[in-house]
Amino acid sequence: MAEKKLVESITSMDVDFAQWYTDVVKKAELTDYTSVKGCMVIKPAGYAIWENIQKNLDAMFKETGVQNVYLPMFIPESLLQKEKDHVEGFAPEVAWVTHGGLNPLQERLCVRPTSETLFCDFYKNDIQSYRDLPKVYNQWCSVVRWEKETRPFLRSREFLWQEGHTAHATMEEAEERTLQMLNVYARFCEEVLAIPVIKGRKTDKEKFAGAEATYTIEALMHDGKALQSGTSHNFGDGFAKAFGIQFADKDNKLKYVYQTSWGMTTRMIGAIIMVHGDDSGLVLPPKIAPTQVMVIPIQQKKEGVLDKAYAIADTLKSNFRVKVDDSDKSPGWKFSEQEMRGIPVRIEIGPKDIEAGKCIICRRDTREKIEVALDALEEKLSEVLAKMQSDMLERARAHRDAHTYTAATMEEFEKIFTEKAGFVKAMWCGDQACEDVIKEKLSVTSRCMPFEQEHIADTCVCCGKPAKKMVYWGRAY
Amino acid sequence: MAEKKLVESITSMDVDFAQWYTDVVKKAELTDYTSVKGCMVIKPAGYAIWENIQKNLDAMFKETGVQNVYLPMFIPESLLQKEKDHVEGFAPEVAWVTHGGLNPLQERLCVRPTSETLFCDFYKNDIQSYRDLPKVYNQWCSVVRWEKETRPFLRSREFLWQEGHTAHATMEEAEERTLQMLNVYARFCEEVLAIPVIKGRKTDKEKFAGAEATYTIEALMHDGKALQSGTSHNFGDGFAKAFGIQFADKDNKLKYVYQTSWGMTTRMIGAIIMVHGDDSGLVLPPKIAPTQVMVIPIQQKKEGVLDKAYAIADTLKSNFRVKVDDSDKSPGWKFSEQEMRGIPVRIEIGPKDIEAGKCIICRRDTREKIEVALDALEEKLSEVLAKMQSDMLERARAHRDAHTYTAATMEEFEKIFTEKAGFVKAMWCGDQACEDVIKEKLSVTSRCMPFEQEHIADTCVCCGKPAKKMVYWGRAY
Repeated sequence: MAEKKLVESITSMDVDFAQWYTDVVKKAELTDYTSVKGCMVIKPAGYAIWENIQKNLDAMFKETGVQNVYLPMFIPESLLQKEKDHVEGFAPEVAWVTHGGLNPLQERLCVRPTSETLFCDFYKNDIQSYRDLPKVYNQWCSVVRWEKETRPFLRSREFLWQEGHTAHATMEEAEERTLQMLNVYARFCEEVLAIPVIKGRKTDKEKFAGAEATYTIEALMHDGKALQSGTSHNFGDGFAKAFGIQFADKDNKLKYVYQTSWGMTTRMIGAIIMVHGDDSGLVLPPKIAPTQVMVIPIQQKKEGVLDKAYAIADTLKSNFRVKVDDSDKSPGWKFSEQEMRGIPVRIEIGPKDIEAGKCIICRRDTREKIEVALDALEEKLSEVLAKMQSDMLERARAHRDAHTYTAATMEEFEKIFTEKAGFVKAMWCGDQACEDVIKEKLSVTSRCMPFEQEHIADTCVCCGKPAKKMVYWGRAY
Repeated sequence: MAEKKLVESITSMDVDFAQWYTDVVKKAELTDYTSVKGCMVIKPAGYAIWENIQKNLDAMFKETGVQNVYLPMFIPESLLQKEKDHVEGFAPEVAWVTHGGLNPLQERLCVRPTSETLFCDFYKNDIQSYRDLPKVYNQWCSVVRWEKETRPFLRSREFLWQEGHTAHATMEEAEERTLQMLNVYARFCEEVLAIPVIKGRKTDKEKFAGAEATYTIEALMHDGKALQSGTSHNFGDGFAKAFGIQFADKDNKLKYVYQTSWGMTTRMIGAIIMVHGDDSGLVLPPKIAPTQVMVIPIQQKKEGVLDKAYAIADTLKSNFRVKVDDSDKSPGWKFSEQEMRGIPVRIEIGPKDIEAGKCIICRRDTREKIEVALDALEEKLSEVLAKMQSDMLERARAHRDAHTYTAATMEEFEKIFTEKAGFVKAMWCGDQACEDVIKEKLSVTSRCMPFEQEHIADTCVCCGKPAKKMVYWGRAY
């Protein structure tokens, strides 16, 4: 009875994916609602995932020479307004501070929705000469965007992220850094989160406010919707001109710098849930799981069982993130909890196992049970966790490929988006009008112009004019 | 010439300590000013110190069972007002958000100055039964207090910190946690930052708004001023009653929880500067230094010198945070820079050293130069860094002890604070009126009632009535 209750309370993902997501987020204790409309609490189980994301991503950043800094959370209105496209993009969705203490402010401040303008203001003074370049700075912080509809991790008024902001002497170097960071994101998603991504460039309609080019990685969720998972922007010298960021080059001439920015957010926790989860709850890739192994004693009141469970955890703890569930609950309930929380592997150990010098390993993703001799446990666990990590990536890739379609005509295009959910590869003339038509008709947006172009047809799927690019289309979170 | 310029630009600390501080912060490239009044940029050299503070302190927290979470940065006005003392303490210095996007908000939100009210609002729903206790949560974030006068790290409108917030079934357990975290802070300051601290309790006048008891660690800066370095508060059940945070206890009765909070901030970077710095710049304790060893090649253009410098760094990097200064500057300039940035040890290596199979180690704090055979370098470095760490603590302790005075009468008390700077230990009757008189007269505040009480006199240093407590007094940052 008790065992069932935990799982019964989750809606099946095939019945109502959105409700399944909400249920998992709640039952796995990742977030909670707050009295602050549109803002969430990230609870320990959720925040621990973010800490692992930070740890892994930050190490990858530092390998490429990134240095961390911290800039203010407030932007004076006049500063936000310096770059025309940028302010147009963000002003409608920022929160404004108008009073400090008991007094009205002379100039109102917005809470940063992103920090390009602050970095520009900083770089303007910090960069004098070519010797000061490149600047490759990043900050981990929270940002605020006054969204109307919110969902935990996917869209909230405040979210956590990192934002990298760089300045370079040449456009080539800026472009190289933009793509380098996109590749870091792609590698992180695939190698650590086991989420395969499509790398490409955003159309002008979908690019970042103020950017010359926006690159993106796009992932497909289990329900066939797309999730923009990381973006990297090349600003050219647009911001530098708006803010007057110049440096004396080797030839003694004053030149404008070229800038980039790139960000990844807590929405990746949403991606992990929606790519890997199942009807029993969360499934965490071993590399990102805060707890990788849960030791669950069977008949723990029998002499020696709990001690053995602790001893096993103790042996494993130098190589794995391991815990013992020594609570008063039944083993079945503990299994359900471990599954709900997505802990990659559980070890079942009872009196008979101890006697036989063995235990049972159970994989969260496949539920496969493996009997292992205790003295071979460490080696077997390494193998199982590595296999689970790579299987999860392959399964996600297979799912994505099975839900990626091609359409040569508008009829095909509409039919797919009416009957199915997934990515559709189709040709595009390059005209924003066609994106508008498609969005209006089908609530579908261009996700990216992938680096790996294919030739689906000669003509634009929408207007029939000659095609310029193959585009991934999808319904997005 | 060039070598001198870097150092000459620092004011001597004996001439003008405040200017020396400002100079060091700027020349060591720790922070920069911004267009946002009262807010600073924390530059890479400053932020890297904060990252090490976070890493060390977070590990110590987790050893005591702390779990990290993230709560919103906004507090609805009605929520802030629920605990009377708390809102009185903070309302005058908060920043108010009044507009979201293009619309005025129905209720204004303050940017968190501290998060007691948010944690209470969260715990109210999250805690139902004694099984849910204790909650031992912490968050790393930034907070905002609309200060009038600001100084980098010491006082700014936005600063970074951690804030722990816990809930317990009994008052005893809350008190135990309050003191446990104070001890963590004290141990962190002494063992990692090499800063000795006085542990004690704040008087009611100086305690946190809404707390039943505030405990503090107080450090003495080089100029004899005190710096409150970490505080830990026991709220009793005051917040629980204001917010209605109840749990069903084992006896099935509904009871209020007992709460604590505790915080440490980026002002500790200011403490490191002001305790350990000298007229050549920063001196970083090895355990917190982002770079512990700088290899400086001499005559680096001669064949083999740079290669050897890289090879040495390569050998050391598994055990030390090491860099090579291979820039085009002169060795003298590099020495000055390494000293300014407070890098604990430099290794000087030139053609003659290489020939002789040796190098020079130079300690930042004592400037002691030690000749070391290259094959004994690793061992010697470990020894030197460990010695430097403990010497720095002992030196700081000796300085503090030499600047800690006792006063039995108001005449003595005034004389010391007129002629000298430091801590003064003196007796107090327990009446706030005496604190007010002392503050008014001498700009001196009670720093704490130390756990280690001494008997200086029978009567209060101010009013002459019977004394209740021995108090540390000082001029504070």
